Amino acid sequence: MAYPYKKIDEKDIAFVTEITDQSRVWVGDEIPTEYYHDEMPEYGIFQPDIYVEAINKEEISALLKYCNEKNIPITARGAGTGLAGGATCKYGGILLSVMKMNRILEVDEQNLSITVEPGALLSEVAAAAAEHGMFYPPDPGEKTASIGGTIVTNAGGMRAVRYGLTRDYVRALEVVLPNGNILNLSSNVVKNTTGLDIKDLVIGSEGILCVVTKLTLKLIAAPKCSYSLVVPFDNIESCIRTVPKLLNSPIVPTAIEFIEEELLEIVERTLGKPFPDHSGSAYLIVMIDGSSKEAVEADCDIAADICLNAGAMDVLLCDTEERIGSVWGVRGAVLEGMKADTTSEEEADVVVPRSHIADFVLEAKKVAKEHRVRIITVGHAGDGNIHTEILRDDLTDEQWRDTIDIVLRALYAISKKYGGQLSGEHGIGNGRLKFLKEFVGDEMYEVYKNIKLAFDPNLILNPGKMVEF
Amino acid sequence: MAYPYKKIDEKDIAFVTEITDQSRVWVGDEIPTEYYHDEMPEYGIFQPDIYVEAINKEEISALLKYCNEKNIPITARGAGTGLAGGATCKYGGILLSVMKMNRILEVDEQNLSITVEPGALLSEVAAAAAEHGMFYPPDPGEKTASIGGTIVTNAGGMRAVRYGLTRDYVRALEVVLPNGNILNLSSNVVKNTTGLDIKDLVIGSEGILCVVTKLTLKLIAAPKCSYSLVVPFDNIESCIRTVPKLLNSPIVPTAIEFIEEELLEIVERTLGKPFPDHSGSAYLIVMIDGSSKEAVEADCDIAADICLNAGAMDVLLCDTEERIGSVWGVRGAVLEGMKADTTSEEEADVVVPRSHIADFVLEAKKVAKEHRVRIITVGHAGDGNIHTEILRDDLTDEQWRDTIDIVLRALYAISKKYGGQLSGEHGIGNGRLKFLKEFVGDEMYEVYKNIKLAFDPNLILNPGKMVEF
Repeated sequence: MAYPYKKIDEKDIAFVTEITDQSRVWVGDEIPTEYYHDEMPEYGIFQPDIYVEAINKEEISALLKYCNEKNIPITARGAGTGLAGGATCKYGGILLSVMKMNRILEVDEQNLSITVEPGALLSEVAAAAAEHGMFYPPDPGEKTASIGGTIVTNAGGMRAVRYGLTRDYVRALEVVLPNGNILNLSSNVVKNTTGLDIKDLVIGSEGILCVVTKLTLKLIAAPKCSYSLVVPFDNIESCIRTVPKLLNSPIVPTAIEFIEEELLEIVERTLGKPFPDHSGSAYLIVMIDGSSKEAVEADCDIAADICLNAGAMDVLLCDTEERIGSVWGVRGAVLEGMKADTTSEEEADVVVPRSHIADFVLEAKKVAKEHRVRIITVGHAGDGNIHTEILRDDLTDEQWRDTIDIVLRALYAISKKYGGQLSGEHGIGNGRLKFLKEFVGDEMYEVYKNIKLAFDPNLILNPGKMVEF
Repeated sequence: MAYPYKKIDEKDIAFVTEITDQSRVWVGDEIPTEYYHDEMPEYGIFQPDIYVEAINKEEISALLKYCNEKNIPITARGAGTGLAGGATCKYGGILLSVMKMNRILEVDEQNLSITVEPGALLSEVAAAAAEHGMFYPPDPGEKTASIGGTIVTNAGGMRAVRYGLTRDYVRALEVVLPNGNILNLSSNVVKNTTGLDIKDLVIGSEGILCVVTKLTLKLIAAPKCSYSLVVPFDNIESCIRTVPKLLNSPIVPTAIEFIEEELLEIVERTLGKPFPDHSGSAYLIVMIDGSSKEAVEADCDIAADICLNAGAMDVLLCDTEERIGSVWGVRGAVLEGMKADTTSEEEADVVVPRSHIADFVLEAKKVAKEHRVRIITVGHAGDGNIHTEILRDDLTDEQWRDTIDIVLRALYAISKKYGGQLSGEHGIGNGRLKFLKEFVGDEMYEVYKNIKLAFDPNLILNPGKMVEF
């Protein structure tokens, strides 16, 4: 069994160096502290014993096989932009970077696909597709995420309302198991009933089952035109109750985001990013794509009518690149803005059935009042995925620790009551680990553990994340 | 361990009767022979010891728990329309029908979803959605399939080109594990990163991991208009090479089917179903949906131009319900027609990258010549999923047995060479079991087995299907 893991010694360092290269291995205090955590250091800061950058699947296979035999924990890492404390060495051991495996291997116009290595950035993959006149739709906030990271976290993002999630674009994966075996999960085909669907199990598995070394992704035809609407409301309830009306209309919006005036002010104050309107107390930002300017304008008209009938104060059309960029720039900066506006923060990333978005937001407001803490809701209203940010402000360490635990449990209970889930897109990692078992129940947690053991019987891969033994 | 399983005795029959009802239990020779096989009796005829119709999840939980404790095999069954020899009692034991659990529980217009029991027919689910002005797109050939069966086989079908597979429409599942535990896999949300994705692992798992007892499915807005094009070509190669051209165009066809004149003649001769054209030697049938008559007409024009430029002899527009029904009626009857035209048949259900459809079909023709056997290719050209039918005609038992084995292996090797898979939509079951391990390799097969054991350590659920121990 895994715990306690073997302590790294000189022999291990020598082995890692030998099968990779001296220039790609760092040990102990040589390892930059940025590799101790992801974008949420609140979810744990852990120093790796060895940091190594692999350049191919053979190196990764050899490393995993060695760790599996020697009982050494090993955690794969992309760009480190996760928000769940996932890609960190909770039990020390080896941090395995895939960021040097960053090639765009093939853009296949016949099969509408792109094959890449996991360390390529999301922005690079999107750009390579665009160069060939095609479109990679998944669009999580962080464009400098590694594409491999977006797959193992099943990243969501703004455009999921129309285009779906990262999962929907993964045709095939090449992965390395803890025993060193290299497997191809499906291939560049659009349907497949050959055996169990391991590919979808790996997507979103947060690096606890295997390490992804190559990916083939589906591309689609690029939309020819994209406009956005900024829609102010004088109260939060009618704002959010407009969302199902948009979703049940004949148009298919690309994104429907919800943001409160309070948060727009924070972003403007802390980061100097202005928003084009301040007349409302809550806003929808609606993105509409289409195959022509005329089609998009027609859909924008339909959306505007729905919003105005639902009580919107106004509808502002953003039809220039500059205006669209500025509006989405503010939306993209909210996390940074909140971080600059408080001492520390925590987040519930719940997702609820879309019919219950307003119920969740209104009850979250009550929780804030009851526990005297600042809670700001923002996010993917079109998906029912509500990023619920809890700001520490001037709470003491002890007050914060107690408050956060009570407030998060209250928010998760509300989500569950409405048929929602613990996490919509940010995942479990280390940060939400202690809430998972309670949320899904012992019987489901047992299934997670059994599956973890089916892949990684010695618990060497990213141990202590998602499931604990 | 499972083998040998316990032989069913009077105590077992008494238990099953006690927790269900006398009126829903059949034993031994009382069991109608239709329950010994699915739509491919070639893939095995097995008599169950007990046939029981469950009416709720509690009964199923009690049955599974009992079987798990007593080492009795149990196989869940829907409408029995599978084509892989999946829902049969290979090792005897209990055949558990879910066909009495057939309620449409809720159509939710706010969340665009429908919640049903597994024994509801696909046609009933589609009709219930349509009554509320919504659309359930998955469309496998067999409309009398149980909806539960379509989920555990991840059924594909005609319309997958535009709308995707059954998998893409499953929001949540309620399942019973072999130990009797009842689990909810996700909920009525559109994204979810709460723990491992067990739901997608269960979809397509052919009843070897758990039994599905309730499903929530995604619906979409119904298209307002749907036309079809019949496109004759004077040779098979230019016919199939047209498919990627349609897929890479600005339009998104709903279905692109491929059929040879030889097969049209068989259907006309054996079933008396006429096809509106006989000028070509190979045909594409293209379905085009849209939000208005004008939009569909415009897309049909684009599709027709592409086909004519690619060498089509003509393009026939089907814009009346009668004409559309007759064309698709012929396409839907091909399996029945072939069965009536020969003594027995076998099928390769390969899927290849769409750029290699023509390569596969042309090489399959060579295999037919080489082994002097009739091979007819038909199917979902838009998906790369080619149903490759091998007809026995007047071969002796021994000749047929030898030929079929060699021919199937040859066809699978061609699929693999082009980056394809063993099965695109019909699955493994008992019929393709002996080819799976060789196709995916020992290392992948080991992962399948480990996952099977993670759910069903005593191997009681649908044993001897997909994986063998």
